[in-house]
Amino acid sequence: MSLLVVGSLALDTIETPFGKITDALGGSAVYISVSASYFVKPIRLVGIVGSDFPDTALQYLESREIDLDGLQIVEGGKTFRWGGRYHYDLNIRDTLYTELNVFEHFKPIIPDAYKKSSYICLGNIDPVLQQCVISQIDNPKLVVGDTMNFWINGKRNELLKALEMMDVIVLNDSETRLLANEPNLIRAARIIMNMGPKMVIIKKGEHGAVLITRKTVFSAPAYPLENINDPTGAGDAFAGGFIGWIAKTDDLSEENLKRAVIYGSTLASFCVEEFSIERLKTLSYLEIQDRFLEFRELSKFDTDYSEKYS
Amino acid sequence: MSLLVVGSLALDTIETPFGKITDALGGSAVYISVSASYFVKPIRLVGIVGSDFPDTALQYLESREIDLDGLQIVEGGKTFRWGGRYHYDLNIRDTLYTELNVFEHFKPIIPDAYKKSSYICLGNIDPVLQQCVISQIDNPKLVVGDTMNFWINGKRNELLKALEMMDVIVLNDSETRLLANEPNLIRAARIIMNMGPKMVIIKKGEHGAVLITRKTVFSAPAYPLENINDPTGAGDAFAGGFIGWIAKTDDLSEENLKRAVIYGSTLASFCVEEFSIERLKTLSYLEIQDRFLEFRELSKFDTDYSEKYS
Repeated sequence: MSLLVVGSLALDTIETPFGKITDALGGSAVYISVSASYFVKPIRLVGIVGSDFPDTALQYLESREIDLDGLQIVEGGKTFRWGGRYHYDLNIRDTLYTELNVFEHFKPIIPDAYKKSSYICLGNIDPVLQQCVISQIDNPKLVVGDTMNFWINGKRNELLKALEMMDVIVLNDSETRLLANEPNLIRAARIIMNMGPKMVIIKKGEHGAVLITRKTVFSAPAYPLENINDPTGAGDAFAGGFIGWIAKTDDLSEENLKRAVIYGSTLASFCVEEFSIERLKTLSYLEIQDRFLEFRELSKFDTDYSEKYS
Repeated sequence: MSLLVVGSLALDTIETPFGKITDALGGSAVYISVSASYFVKPIRLVGIVGSDFPDTALQYLESREIDLDGLQIVEGGKTFRWGGRYHYDLNIRDTLYTELNVFEHFKPIIPDAYKKSSYICLGNIDPVLQQCVISQIDNPKLVVGDTMNFWINGKRNELLKALEMMDVIVLNDSETRLLANEPNLIRAARIIMNMGPKMVIIKKGEHGAVLITRKTVFSAPAYPLENINDPTGAGDAFAGGFIGWIAKTDDLSEENLKRAVIYGSTLASFCVEEFSIERLKTLSYLEIQDRFLEFRELSKFDTDYSEKYS
């Protein structure tokens, strides 16, 4: 099934206690589409870069069979750049700079051939642009979107309109609380479902992820990683693995959504092992399947024995 | 199997956005022993109260078949009192007062009949007292202990000695990081296992719990509660459910430890539904079994389908 991905492409400069990388490939659309590329093709990427965007990066994306017909390359423009430094506790990071550059005036232009995409994944971009993208697509099967505190606080009304058009919203726990204005995560998710989405996925980093639908709550554990080099992009890798699996299987049953959450968690867990997309680059489908099954073991317990004592 | 519980008995005054309760039954030994009493008897409680400790509380503990021969009642003394106020976000609380009273000079006296207890659960008390208790018990099968930042910072050397004598240490995530001086929770747990305990349980509140042994990592989801009235005692109810199940089954296999973590999570989830021990008081074993099985559903996903796509 076809998957449309819209978001940022960036050159990230990232420092963690374990190393540093300069002008490395990043951005939500990159992490989402590379992660999803392990499951589905074609992936149609809509985004914007400057003429400084490395040819090697374009070639890599093409090698993953990511279709770049929707990528705007602004001649003489500069690509979006972000610099960040993570603390020893990787949950804490400082943004050192954000240079929007060509991304500041990004208007997603959806090629005609993309307008019949079955699945859509929207990275964390202006909710006005999210609405603009969704409204151009002809009856998609599932629309997944991401957002952040900046839009929840700054463009709430536009975000509410975008949410009405989404099926799945992917948030971290602080975004969930802020959007719903409710500290209890389960209640907050129910409030957000009343804003439009059929389901909410709360990404909790080292604490795993939770899928909440009107009928069910599914809790995915975090993979117990001891060596995390760079947490950047984990949330987008999650979204890519999630939507990639759904697009591959074309199955929107609740059982399959749960599996998709585990595939999302799997891709996120690989993503943070190395800087930028380095680990995603070397990944094999077999490694993904092995880790998927490891996730199963992580939360598995045997109930038969308990029945003996009931 | 016999279970020895040592910890505080308190009269708590607690305010949350959902109500207030004055001089209600609390303290680690109370939450632990009441929770464990759904699984095992006899439970032997060692602690201290003043003569102001209500008769109704004593009668209630006895009604749960908790043996009070080891409870010191100081004539004319006042029971330990704690006052706290929770914010709208229940993860944040202010301690309003701590009156140690008779608890300040508590020296656990273990009656001879208790010295052959098979299982020991030590609430969060001075690590010197924890050592003193463990050293008096004749070859226990499993020693579970709790601690807190106050002891990790203030009596680190004594705590390290106590840890050498424990099999299981139960911590929350910030205590885990502080004790190990390592932000990554899995690495931190491995560092702590090198201090003595065979396993570490990290209680993460709304994010569930993780059991880490030298061989395995087991992730227990949080029960998706929408109505939490009072988080006080959740960690102790967890410890009580955990050790209660193990003492009942007298089975230290890894599979059974995983079940015990789920029973701990089950008791903690009931505990926070009402103030003080109100919900624990009305609990039935059937309700516990039902929720145990609900935990199973929370993290269950089907892998067969994935193999089709491997």
